[in-house]
Amino acid sequence: MDKVVLAFSGGLDTSVCIKLLEEKYNMEVVTACVDVGQPREEIERPAAVAMDIGNYKHHTIDAREEFASDFIFPAIKANALYEGYPLSTALARPLIAMKIVELAHAEGADAIAHGCTGKGNDQFRFEAIIRSLSDCKIIAPIRDLNLTRTEEMDYARSCGIPLPSDKLYSIDENLWGRAIEGDILEDPMVEPPEDAFSWTRSSADAPEKSQTIEMEFQNGVPIAINGDKLNPLDLVGKCNDLAGMHGIGRVDIIEDRIIGLKSREIYETPGAFLILAAHKALEQMTLTRNELKFAEIVSNTYSELIYDGMWHEPLREDLDHLLSHMQQRVSGIVRLKLHKGSLRVVGRKSPNSLYNQETVSFEDKTLDQREMTGMVKNYAMQAAIYQKLFKK
Amino acid sequence: MDKVVLAFSGGLDTSVCIKLLEEKYNMEVVTACVDVGQPREEIERPAAVAMDIGNYKHHTIDAREEFASDFIFPAIKANALYEGYPLSTALARPLIAMKIVELAHAEGADAIAHGCTGKGNDQFRFEAIIRSLSDCKIIAPIRDLNLTRTEEMDYARSCGIPLPSDKLYSIDENLWGRAIEGDILEDPMVEPPEDAFSWTRSSADAPEKSQTIEMEFQNGVPIAINGDKLNPLDLVGKCNDLAGMHGIGRVDIIEDRIIGLKSREIYETPGAFLILAAHKALEQMTLTRNELKFAEIVSNTYSELIYDGMWHEPLREDLDHLLSHMQQRVSGIVRLKLHKGSLRVVGRKSPNSLYNQETVSFEDKTLDQREMTGMVKNYAMQAAIYQKLFKK
Amino acid sequence: MDKVVLAFSGGLDTSVCIKLLEEKYNMEVVTACVDVGQPREEIERPAAVAMDIGNYKHHTIDAREEFASDFIFPAIKANALYEGYPLSTALARPLIAMKIVELAHAEGADAIAHGCTGKGNDQFRFEAIIRSLSDCKIIAPIRDLNLTRTEEMDYARSCGIPLPSDKLYSIDENLWGRAIEGDILEDPMVEPPEDAFSWTRSSADAPEKSQTIEMEFQNGVPIAINGDKLNPLDLVGKCNDLAGMHGIGRVDIIEDRIIGLKSREIYETPGAFLILAAHKALEQMTLTRNELKFAEIVSNTYSELIYDGMWHEPLREDLDHLLSHMQQRVSGIVRLKLHKGSLRVVGRKSPNSLYNQETVSFEDKTLDQREMTGMVKNYAMQAAIYQKLFKK
Amino acid sequence: MDKVVLAFSGGLDTSVCIKLLEEKYNMEVVTACVDVGQPREEIERPAAVAMDIGNYKHHTIDAREEFASDFIFPAIKANALYEGYPLSTALARPLIAMKIVELAHAEGADAIAHGCTGKGNDQFRFEAIIRSLSDCKIIAPIRDLNLTRTEEMDYARSCGIPLPSDKLYSIDENLWGRAIEGDILEDPMVEPPEDAFSWTRSSADAPEKSQTIEMEFQNGVPIAINGDKLNPLDLVGKCNDLAGMHGIGRVDIIEDRIIGLKSREIYETPGAFLILAAHKALEQMTLTRNELKFAEIVSNTYSELIYDGMWHEPLREDLDHLLSHMQQRVSGIVRLKLHKGSLRVVGRKSPNSLYNQETVSFEDKTLDQREMTGMVKNYAMQAAIYQKLFKK
Repeated sequence: MDKVVLAFSGGLDTSVCIKLLEEKYNMEVVTACVDVGQPREEIERPAAVAMDIGNYKHHTIDAREEFASDFIFPAIKANALYEGYPLSTALARPLIAMKIVELAHAEGADAIAHGCTGKGNDQFRFEAIIRSLSDCKIIAPIRDLNLTRTEEMDYARSCGIPLPSDKLYSIDENLWGRAIEGDILEDPMVEPPEDAFSWTRSSADAPEKSQTIEMEFQNGVPIAINGDKLNPLDLVGKCNDLAGMHGIGRVDIIEDRIIGLKSREIYETPGAFLILAAHKALEQMTLTRNELKFAEIVSNTYSELIYDGMWHEPLREDLDHLLSHMQQRVSGIVRLKLHKGSLRVVGRKSPNSLYNQETVSFEDKTLDQREMTGMVKNYAMQAAIYQKLFKK
Repeated sequence: MDKVVLAFSGGLDTSVCIKLLEEKYNMEVVTACVDVGQPREEIERPAAVAMDIGNYKHHTIDAREEFASDFIFPAIKANALYEGYPLSTALARPLIAMKIVELAHAEGADAIAHGCTGKGNDQFRFEAIIRSLSDCKIIAPIRDLNLTRTEEMDYARSCGIPLPSDKLYSIDENLWGRAIEGDILEDPMVEPPEDAFSWTRSSADAPEKSQTIEMEFQNGVPIAINGDKLNPLDLVGKCNDLAGMHGIGRVDIIEDRIIGLKSREIYETPGAFLILAAHKALEQMTLTRNELKFAEIVSNTYSELIYDGMWHEPLREDLDHLLSHMQQRVSGIVRLKLHKGSLRVVGRKSPNSLYNQETVSFEDKTLDQREMTGMVKNYAMQAAIYQKLFKK
Repeated sequence: MDKVVLAFSGGLDTSVCIKLLEEKYNMEVVTACVDVGQPREEIERPAAVAMDIGNYKHHTIDAREEFASDFIFPAIKANALYEGYPLSTALARPLIAMKIVELAHAEGADAIAHGCTGKGNDQFRFEAIIRSLSDCKIIAPIRDLNLTRTEEMDYARSCGIPLPSDKLYSIDENLWGRAIEGDILEDPMVEPPEDAFSWTRSSADAPEKSQTIEMEFQNGVPIAINGDKLNPLDLVGKCNDLAGMHGIGRVDIIEDRIIGLKSREIYETPGAFLILAAHKALEQMTLTRNELKFAEIVSNTYSELIYDGMWHEPLREDLDHLLSHMQQRVSGIVRLKLHKGSLRVVGRKSPNSLYNQETVSFEDKTLDQREMTGMVKNYAMQAAIYQKLFKK
Repeated sequence: MDKVVLAFSGGLDTSVCIKLLEEKYNMEVVTACVDVGQPREEIERPAAVAMDIGNYKHHTIDAREEFASDFIFPAIKANALYEGYPLSTALARPLIAMKIVELAHAEGADAIAHGCTGKGNDQFRFEAIIRSLSDCKIIAPIRDLNLTRTEEMDYARSCGIPLPSDKLYSIDENLWGRAIEGDILEDPMVEPPEDAFSWTRSSADAPEKSQTIEMEFQNGVPIAINGDKLNPLDLVGKCNDLAGMHGIGRVDIIEDRIIGLKSREIYETPGAFLILAAHKALEQMTLTRNELKFAEIVSNTYSELIYDGMWHEPLREDLDHLLSHMQQRVSGIVRLKLHKGSLRVVGRKSPNSLYNQETVSFEDKTLDQREMTGMVKNYAMQAAIYQKLFKK
């Protein structure tokens, strides 16, 4: 009997997959869950469910530090954002796939399975990485059997698989954010109800008093909050707590999936918003206008690569090389004010600042204003010629 | 004696210019103020000051409707934003220059004067337009005499020009926003004190209760708030009031001026933030992914042209033609929630929506999931080849 | 029995399709060939073969003028070029698909069939358009039965389908160019032998004497050669003859297909090269630097859309609107020298020229050189600050 | 008396500068010529002229290897091209400026002088670098005195400066190319006469027989011609000879100068054309489609930076870091055919090729065509929705 490693969350989709892999594909199933910063119960549940359904061999793989250092931190340097969303799910998928491949090889498995449906992005993100790193067969039972949610439930009941307690929404969580979709959220005119949120307080419930914090960056990544040096994992966690408490980080967008379906997505990414706002503020102080403009192109390209499951594209590595140089100067401290869902940058300083307070002053004479006369006179020369030729 | 039309605000710079133009340039001075939505006192003051200093002929030119319809509305279609700033001052400068040129020609003037210093952006924005539309000589007394603020004050005192009441900040206002700079704000680590703001309440002082509004768009521009149809001028004003009351629209950035100086700028643009957030949300629903991606390039280019005083570039008109077609489908209603400095899009609908609630559903079978298997398998083919060649 | 319209070239692939559609799909077959400027024999052959194989009803649809005016001419305005290739095949596919759909509707057909294999671009280009315009079923027999060339030949023999005379290469031709692939050309280190070419002479066989021609443009498209006004169809044909005779227009590239396969492609596009070179030369004279730079972005995006079979994307129409405005000024005459495979622009003039011979001259004083001193001094200010901070 | 180092070519402009610096600026003049690959006589002449005019201390600085390795080779990786021109003059200016600064510091000079006029690009390119690296005063006598060519001649005669023999054109040469402007060439409709060219034969005079060569690349730069390993300096020289002999590398464009003046420029850059054509061909084989597309953006940005004299921008270094990674795989051999002004890539191979001859073949079954059916069906989904909503 062939052996298969199944990426397992303990939810309906993957629980159904266990049985399908045994019954329809006739395989020996090993389950695995990769910890990329989900809540504790999301890590513990798969082990319990795997035991419950049939005492399957289950692995829990802690990839949190790697996720923070090698995925989130490069994404911060790139200001990665796709149509307004900081790419939490998309960013974790390649790492999960890498860990599952490692395990499959260690287990001597013949195949790797996942529970993705055929309409979403994750099938692309998982399989692209798996196929790049392994010759294992890839199996996607839900998609390959074209099952609807209702059909899955029927099958689960027929196998005695414990149905997950009634969850309204389909949720994905990791250190960088929480994604919520499904149910009433599919109507894009309906405001997401408060029960959809878990990491962020509403602005109404956030503290009455504002809080001002200082975030320190070195070489383009955050290293301390209010003077406390923190490792990447703890720092991102701390930012999630702080910003979430103040009601910051809710996203409500219509998003373009890889295959072209538009979908309405709700995200909570409090830490990401806090860090990205601070990072951009520091870039404005330390990078030239030419660099800032190009960094925007890099950011858009980098973000698309992540969203599209292209972490393994050589272009992503090319861009990392550019960023590693450019971000060397993005060091300093940013002051941010958090209050009732509002986030404001209110101060920044850097040893590498290109801002010069003296020159800007109305009293300064190092820049002789008369030197500007000729420059201004000859500025925008072609537009002037155009106007004189065609508009007068 | 040659006649000069001076763009006149009644502040220190331009008051000094009146006297300089008479005494150093030996010219007959006519003053003018273009109304682009400044507060009433900013419109009334120049007339009073011109009278006060020496009974000069003064014109007030109402350009508010033109500003809203022909400048702000195209900028909305383009989501115009420069390094985080909705370009209020930059957007009004070309219109002011056009009106001053018209007046200069009507007055039979030989020259046009402005009070810009040699370090800022406005000298470029004014002169680029004036030179394109007129053969009048251009005079910039402050710059041409390389005066500091202190030197201006001394000169003003020596001529008996009434010094403006002590203003801490240098301020520019129009319908699309309020810009604040100078004094303590020049230290980029200092939080702007509350007295710097005038259009927006602090989140602390904003109403305790959130407010949800609906904004309707037609062809890419807003036409109604909560069902009330409004002309462009009134609609933008209404948005400024609403968002300002809820503490929305404060911007604090380090900005790259045209000549390359970085400067710290504070803006209040409540209406702009409200409208742009709604506009983008509706674009996500009605434009294709390809269009959204290209719209971002257009937006960056359009914004740079405005910032750089290039309103008269033919490329700006080229982009308007693209937008006029693309934005035809950006119609519908967006729901926004305003509360204590936070602004959230919480719903949207459109007759031109490309979103299809049925197809997205987990129960739908119009998209056969099995059709995806081959697509996923062959997705990202080149990245896989790269990984297999170079990384295994 | 259901009726199917088959896009028919009379070659092996589509001849095999006729029989497959009858025998395996049990359908009534109507064949059609769309004339987009193929050589006469390519238009006549399908009718003869359809008759020969089984007296099928065959339509020949003349779409040449539409192709020249509505597809090639917009592509000229956009300088459409994909990885060095003027997109001849890609540009004709949407039009062919549109004409086939029209015919299918007129014939009351239930399905549309094409002979594309599963590795190429044309399956995407055809089906994307067909699906957008029609609810007909789409059938791709070769792909759906996963046939190799050898299997097709076997099947053809078994049905008594006359095998096409031995052709070494797989060829596609239309007014805008000729594409050659297959056989020895699949080795990318092998120089294409002379027998691969048909529209262009080798530089060795081209006339000894060079020829200089003048091409006149109006609003971004060519209207006359050496003073002879020609309609689009005749003008492109004339350019193919002229440039082909002089050995111009051979392309040899490695190209990225839609699915990610790299393939080695040979093209002959003499007229396209001639026209695009002239068009770009005229743009340099009549567009501003800002426009030229943006036109390059537009060109890249437009070309990708065409290559990827996205003619029906709304973004393509958006770009057409931009170009229709921008290209209004691209009028004038360009002089080109053709000789032995080399093509040189050697002169250009335009009533809309932004070039000013007087100002450029070393004797001119309208531009006072001293005005430049301050501009030069303050140029590249941020780079200087960067150097002084980090490099000294 | 202050000491000034003058960048000296021995031509009219800089000869006049020597005397102006002495007489009008009252300075001690040291002259210097930086060898970046000019013809021998251009290197020897300045020394002779400096002696002739007044026995001035003169330095010749050999920077040829540095120019080839540290300026031309990075530009090859970037495919640097500005509006069709390989940027020869622009690329050498920063290096010349650096060498002059070094000398000025070694000489203990107070100032650096150059002979640029106020209409060209070189004033920007020189001064931007000089100001970044030195606190020396910068003097531009021709510009600062607003002299025309005729006025310079008059002054030269008045001082007894030997007038240069009658040269029709203004010429600049270095290892990467030769720029020709002025005189009859200022009429953009006139074909450049043969006497304007020096590095390239006309297609008429080029050898009757074509020549095929092989160029080998390693990490994105050329290392051998026809199997002969050559250092950068010799390799570029060899390419100039080869391509020039076959009439390749003439450019005739309208170009946008930094200040916005359009000018008609003629260039001869035979080696650059040869190398860039080969480099691009190898990139097509070894880079992914995503990389090729991004490389084009990098190329445009890099080229603009060079043209605009921004070699010292940190963004240029950022881009170099990206390229150094991306170009690691651009190794292999390209075959090129040179004949009578025509240059064709006719073959390429690489150990890092992403092209797979087997998969592309019509006989291959590793890619199951049936897998494409679903992909094709769901391709371009949004465009189809758009068409169905708005066009039917």
